[in-house]
Amino acid sequence: MLSKTRLKYIQTLGQKKFRDSEGLFIAEGPKIVEELLREENVKVKEVLALEEWIETHGSLAKKFNITSISSLELERISSLSSPNQVLAVLEQFPVKPVLATKGRFTLALDDIQDPGNMGTIIRLADWYGIDQLVCSTRSADIYNPKVVQSTMGSIARVNCYYTDLETWLGEQEMNIYAAVLNGRSIQDMPPLKEGIMIIGNESRGISESILKLVNEKLTIPKIGKAESLNAAVATGIILSHLLK
Amino acid sequence: MLSKTRLKYIQTLGQKKFRDSEGLFIAEGPKIVEELLREENVKVKEVLALEEWIETHGSLAKKFNITSISSLELERISSLSSPNQVLAVLEQFPVKPVLATKGRFTLALDDIQDPGNMGTIIRLADWYGIDQLVCSTRSADIYNPKVVQSTMGSIARVNCYYTDLETWLGEQEMNIYAAVLNGRSIQDMPPLKEGIMIIGNESRGISESILKLVNEKLTIPKIGKAESLNAAVATGIILSHLLK
Repeated sequence: MLSKTRLKYIQTLGQKKFRDSEGLFIAEGPKIVEELLREENVKVKEVLALEEWIETHGSLAKKFNITSISSLELERISSLSSPNQVLAVLEQFPVKPVLATKGRFTLALDDIQDPGNMGTIIRLADWYGIDQLVCSTRSADIYNPKVVQSTMGSIARVNCYYTDLETWLGEQEMNIYAAVLNGRSIQDMPPLKEGIMIIGNESRGISESILKLVNEKLTIPKIGKAESLNAAVATGIILSHLLK
Repeated sequence: MLSKTRLKYIQTLGQKKFRDSEGLFIAEGPKIVEELLREENVKVKEVLALEEWIETHGSLAKKFNITSISSLELERISSLSSPNQVLAVLEQFPVKPVLATKGRFTLALDDIQDPGNMGTIIRLADWYGIDQLVCSTRSADIYNPKVVQSTMGSIARVNCYYTDLETWLGEQEMNIYAAVLNGRSIQDMPPLKEGIMIIGNESRGISESILKLVNEKLTIPKIGKAESLNAAVATGIILSHLLK
């Protein structure tokens, strides 16, 4: 059973202010919780689960501070529309500044604001072996429950660093790429071993001041009529052509 | 001013049952509404907008049945978390069966269930000039407000046909492609002029019975550690390599 105080405490972690002051975040559902519990760099504060999850995860469950809760309690602390068996309270990852170095590919996000896009881009970076992401300070919070959910566990493998993107880009000695409407076709690009790829905001694209720092402008050729592509989808298409 | 009855009526269109029996659906926000109002094949039942939207869209507004509403009324009929100036009630598109013919590329969705993914795939199809989509009967409803929103207007340009996918595939005389974990790399594929590409469900992939009908299995090469990719992102990467 959860006390009223503990229930309230977990609910407050839905808000960025409280998450940050406590240094914690929440992951939910068997798939993502199990993946995160197995990651070495994930520090687990506590796990709250239905009896059925605890019974079927004996060996995993033994290692952590687990509380058995009822479906009703899970519903009250969950941010999902269909709460799913288990919720873990985890420590936020240490803040590690990012440097774009030789032989390494870095993604830079210029105000990606939709949590689903943010999480999907982190998952995508992980698929393509990119382990560092620089985010403008107005990008979605990686610890937002919807971001955590859509990373599908990749949040533990990609270092996400929030900073003033323009200043950071100005300090890097690497080629900077960006997708725009009239650049070089990504189909004609040779495979890249290093560099920084900027992904722009969902509605206004890449800021003018940041576009000035770009060395090469790229374009995803369009055959049909849609005005634009979803930001995470565009990121996927670009990475699949640059990193091969 | 909206009468209570009219307000309730519009609210019921949030549910599939009522949308289908009325043959209507809802689009919201200036960007998507303006794009849809300009499409020839979109039949407009009515437009409900704030006075400020009506004032700045005089010529567009004149052509349609427009009601001026208050922010409070918009909030009550909107399905968005931040209601945005205008809401249009539109007629559903006529049901047009799809046939995979020579020189034409068709997407087939095997239970895509997330409305955001569904809408993003429709937008993506439109970007790549694919004007027909076949959806298994358990795929998300294209008139779901979240689907409509994430198509960004492409819903008017892509014919989406719901049917028993296995039966439909069995009747087509075209190459059938599907993305799996151990197929031929999409990087090695020559450009395709025609065929059917199947996209599988977000968690269980493509059904066994449907996989048996596939002629060529394709794979998106993985460099890093993520277990899988988001379904819409995977669709984007595949199309960008097959249609060039």
